[in-house]
Amino acid sequence: MKLKKEIKSVVFIGSGNVATHLSVALHKMGMPILQIYSPNIEHARLLARKTESSAIHDLSEINPEADLYLISIPDDKIIKVIDELKPFSGIAAHTSGIVEMKVLEKFENFGVFYPLQTFSKNRPVDITTVPFCIEGNSEDTQNTLFDLAKKLSRSVQYINSVDRKQIHLAAVFVNNFPNHLYAAAENLLKEKNISFEILLPLLQETAAKMQDLKPEEAQTGPARRNDLNTIKTHSAMLKNHPELLEIYQLFSHQILKKYHDKL
Amino acid sequence: MKLKKEIKSVVFIGSGNVATHLSVALHKMGMPILQIYSPNIEHARLLARKTESSAIHDLSEINPEADLYLISIPDDKIIKVIDELKPFSGIAAHTSGIVEMKVLEKFENFGVFYPLQTFSKNRPVDITTVPFCIEGNSEDTQNTLFDLAKKLSRSVQYINSVDRKQIHLAAVFVNNFPNHLYAAAENLLKEKNISFEILLPLLQETAAKMQDLKPEEAQTGPARRNDLNTIKTHSAMLKNHPELLEIYQLFSHQILKKYHDKL
Repeated sequence: MKLKKEIKSVVFIGSGNVATHLSVALHKMGMPILQIYSPNIEHARLLARKTESSAIHDLSEINPEADLYLISIPDDKIIKVIDELKPFSGIAAHTSGIVEMKVLEKFENFGVFYPLQTFSKNRPVDITTVPFCIEGNSEDTQNTLFDLAKKLSRSVQYINSVDRKQIHLAAVFVNNFPNHLYAAAENLLKEKNISFEILLPLLQETAAKMQDLKPEEAQTGPARRNDLNTIKTHSAMLKNHPELLEIYQLFSHQILKKYHDKL
Repeated sequence: MKLKKEIKSVVFIGSGNVATHLSVALHKMGMPILQIYSPNIEHARLLARKTESSAIHDLSEINPEADLYLISIPDDKIIKVIDELKPFSGIAAHTSGIVEMKVLEKFENFGVFYPLQTFSKNRPVDITTVPFCIEGNSEDTQNTLFDLAKKLSRSVQYINSVDRKQIHLAAVFVNNFPNHLYAAAENLLKEKNISFEILLPLLQETAAKMQDLKPEEAQTGPARRNDLNTIKTHSAMLKNHPELLEIYQLFSHQILKKYHDKL
């Protein structure tokens, strides 16, 4: 029986928010980060300093002795970078939610190391609660990546490329789109010189509730209770905000239809 | 100078989620709750037991010695209940976000006591963080209601009826509509037998971020970074979900337009 391989050194390809949070977390738990690559050497240097590693901006300088290349760059740049990388004996993995694992098949060992979280520049994230979606081209590779993720987080799962794509799509509905709604609310308050802060406890309880309730049990509001008067009042209030009105009417329509089979 | 009046007893008209959370919180801080009214006497009894008060289901039985009637019932039933109430010397206030204060003008002292939060049956809420929007027909009434709210919460503001209506509308955009998006995401995961739990850390961080970032700074996702390939892939994945596709396309369109002046 072949022994399961353990990752003992990592090279990061990328220096954005995901690369930053992952490399700093790995560095903190004692994992040697050999190099940080970025086409912008200043970006690479900034993160290299935080992780006691070397900054490079030329892919040909990547250390082939590393156990793991973690490719953490914008989705549309992954293919091109893989093209330029040379085969090596370690594992090559990307951190994307949507890119299929098989784009890495020129490597002997390859996989996916996808942290399902939104990372911001100056906001710490508790990495131990971040769900990691792991995929590998072989059982060995998969187990090796799983074990590495387990050192960072309590929440690690094997997820294939098809399911990961679906999770990534669902993530847009709980992250990017609610955020757009928050911006809409902020605009409505700004109009009356009311600080957005007044909404924060409600906004956060709406999310926190999901720990105890299913979204359908938690649904409230004018459309949920079939309160057509309020919907009319709100719609009139939005007459100078055509984009917000469009959102308001689409959502009210869908909620009325779902819970009251109306419209 | 007339002395500011202090509320020393309350009657609740209503026994739903808002009435429950408010009456229990007031009872806990030692405020005598004289009566709980509900047209359904069983509902009134349930809450009366929790607040050591009397249950009534006939508005004519309301104790006119109370310092405050708190009308906490569905918006569309408020006018009718006010019609049936007799004038008294205390303050009559409702807890609605959208109903104007002046519907209470048959009383000598009247106002609004609006807690801006979503209350669920079996989920405790930290009342000390709930923003209260206070309005009163006179400075005395306003101050009296303000002082009462201050005993419950650190976050109390005078808000007039016009601004309160706008806050209530904005609240729909950070509470009811995100919740509808959560339901959409849950459906997408259910299709692949993936538990909704995997999204909770992301969903909650999306809300938590608002403490540090403005919504427009926090906006991320395919449309924000003008990633038309991913939008195309996601749209294709939604071909059997026409309602989710409609949401996806509307939001992507609006985000592209806002940040890239596209489409």
